[in-house]
Amino acid sequence: MKEFDLIKQYFAQRGHVRKDVILGIGDDCAITKVPDNQHLAVTTDTLISGVHFLADAPARSVAYKAVAVNLSDLAACGAEPAWISLSLSLPSYDEAWIDEFVNGLYELTEYYSVQLIGGDTVTGPLALTITAQGFVPPDTELRRSNAKPGDWIYVTGNLGDAGAGLDILKGNIEASAEHRDYLINRHYYPTPRVLAGTSLRRTANTGIDVSDGLVADLSHILRASGCGATVHVDRLPVSSALFDTVGAQQAYRYALSAGDDYELVFTVNEEQRGNLETSLANANVKATCIGQVNGYTGQLDLRLYDAKYELDKDAGYEHQF
Amino acid sequence: MKEFDLIKQYFAQRGHVRKDVILGIGDDCAITKVPDNQHLAVTTDTLISGVHFLADAPARSVAYKAVAVNLSDLAACGAEPAWISLSLSLPSYDEAWIDEFVNGLYELTEYYSVQLIGGDTVTGPLALTITAQGFVPPDTELRRSNAKPGDWIYVTGNLGDAGAGLDILKGNIEASAEHRDYLINRHYYPTPRVLAGTSLRRTANTGIDVSDGLVADLSHILRASGCGATVHVDRLPVSSALFDTVGAQQAYRYALSAGDDYELVFTVNEEQRGNLETSLANANVKATCIGQVNGYTGQLDLRLYDAKYELDKDAGYEHQF
Repeated sequence: MKEFDLIKQYFAQRGHVRKDVILGIGDDCAITKVPDNQHLAVTTDTLISGVHFLADAPARSVAYKAVAVNLSDLAACGAEPAWISLSLSLPSYDEAWIDEFVNGLYELTEYYSVQLIGGDTVTGPLALTITAQGFVPPDTELRRSNAKPGDWIYVTGNLGDAGAGLDILKGNIEASAEHRDYLINRHYYPTPRVLAGTSLRRTANTGIDVSDGLVADLSHILRASGCGATVHVDRLPVSSALFDTVGAQQAYRYALSAGDDYELVFTVNEEQRGNLETSLANANVKATCIGQVNGYTGQLDLRLYDAKYELDKDAGYEHQF
Repeated sequence: MKEFDLIKQYFAQRGHVRKDVILGIGDDCAITKVPDNQHLAVTTDTLISGVHFLADAPARSVAYKAVAVNLSDLAACGAEPAWISLSLSLPSYDEAWIDEFVNGLYELTEYYSVQLIGGDTVTGPLALTITAQGFVPPDTELRRSNAKPGDWIYVTGNLGDAGAGLDILKGNIEASAEHRDYLINRHYYPTPRVLAGTSLRRTANTGIDVSDGLVADLSHILRASGCGATVHVDRLPVSSALFDTVGAQQAYRYALSAGDDYELVFTVNEEQRGNLETSLANANVKATCIGQVNGYTGQLDLRLYDAKYELDKDAGYEHQF
């Protein structure tokens, strides 16, 4: 396999072309232009076969998810995506696999007008690293460290579907044909909440995406902000597919601790709450208030219908498939 | 191993801090600012154990080389380095190895005032991907496609040392103790030609770095520019260490086809030649004129004292250790 030929053949002649890309794939560097009065948001995520995705995951999903995970990080900061670089490590040259992979990649980049500006293709164990870049106006980025006692805690979309989808694939749980497809798709093809992220810029105090599970990711915000929080487990948004498949108790557990949902968790103060809800409604983004930040540093108080709720300690996401 | 703790412990509290980094390691994204009137150069390179470096390479070298390779790509476009993101895949948690790795990383980033702005740490086969970003004034970047017939071909530094160093490590050749250390160091710790790259901006027509070997990399320029070239093998710059160790004939072969030297090859027209030599001399960069571009598309004519020189066909760099 000639890595140059591979890159050229599959990537150089396809995909969205942006005006702010002055020199794209094919040289030592890409050359781009950040718009005046915008800051640059940069994130990098690596996905390894058998660690971050099932070894037999469809190629389309591998690419789709890798892009989604990175766009999700941009969204969590309120950034609008612009460019990605891809480093792809392949054990062998499998044209059908690569075709499917490229389709999955361009599916998302086309949708969000993101351009692939470069990368690397190497021989090695199946793994990929994407660096995504986007723009955010100065002083509007969402930081983990800005939560304040009294802030309301919101989450976009539904939680727990991706975890249940993975458990279906692993044979741990069963679902009806319809729910099965829905939940597995939520695992294989997560939706990055790009529009939600940019809608939150001037109203939310903090944001993070749910990659490791709600409890783990909300805890990152609380630690960085020196706060605590109360979360009402009964208010967690779960899909009817998840609810019907595993029942309420197990649905809550998925919602709290399964990762890979890539919904956004954010906090907003009382004053901005109305503006935020209007802004999200205009963008057609579903968001649910699930609790409130308080001053009890590092404490996450889970409540089920106002009674204390205990989450199994070993229910956290382990990044192992 | 908790990946967050690992990142925090080793990376968050150390290294160069730049004013254009608004938000560094620890959030979903880094937030940075590109200076007004500068374009952004972006490059990504992956190094895999056993493919791009010896499985028993020192950790310091693994990190150093990964940074050098990326800064070299920026230099090849004439860009000044600013930030890197690191994705590190580690099979296990080995504190001594990580310490040494971090030292190698910061050795180069400190020297070039580059800030590590983020990344990812995952469990998997030993591999790392770095995305490096830098600045280049509009319309001054060096592209592969701009060579013109008549351009003089130059190369910085010496060629072939890194390839000989690798062959010493593999037991293929022997060297005196002094030369051995020098050549192995050139393999393990290549110097990115950062200052050379920025010095070439307004005078050179094209640039590329020698990662796959002079013949392979110069051919990229010729193909992209629709040109041919004559290269005088006897004028290739080789170190006395390489010359003393393997003799002239073998030294030429290393210089032509061994990779990993990370010197810059560039072309300049007659008119700019004097300015370029002055500019490189001011920056204290050694560069040697090794030939000339011509109009015979795709033909690379190698000459040894004006006689035709044939390079073994299978002498190309194979990216396999």
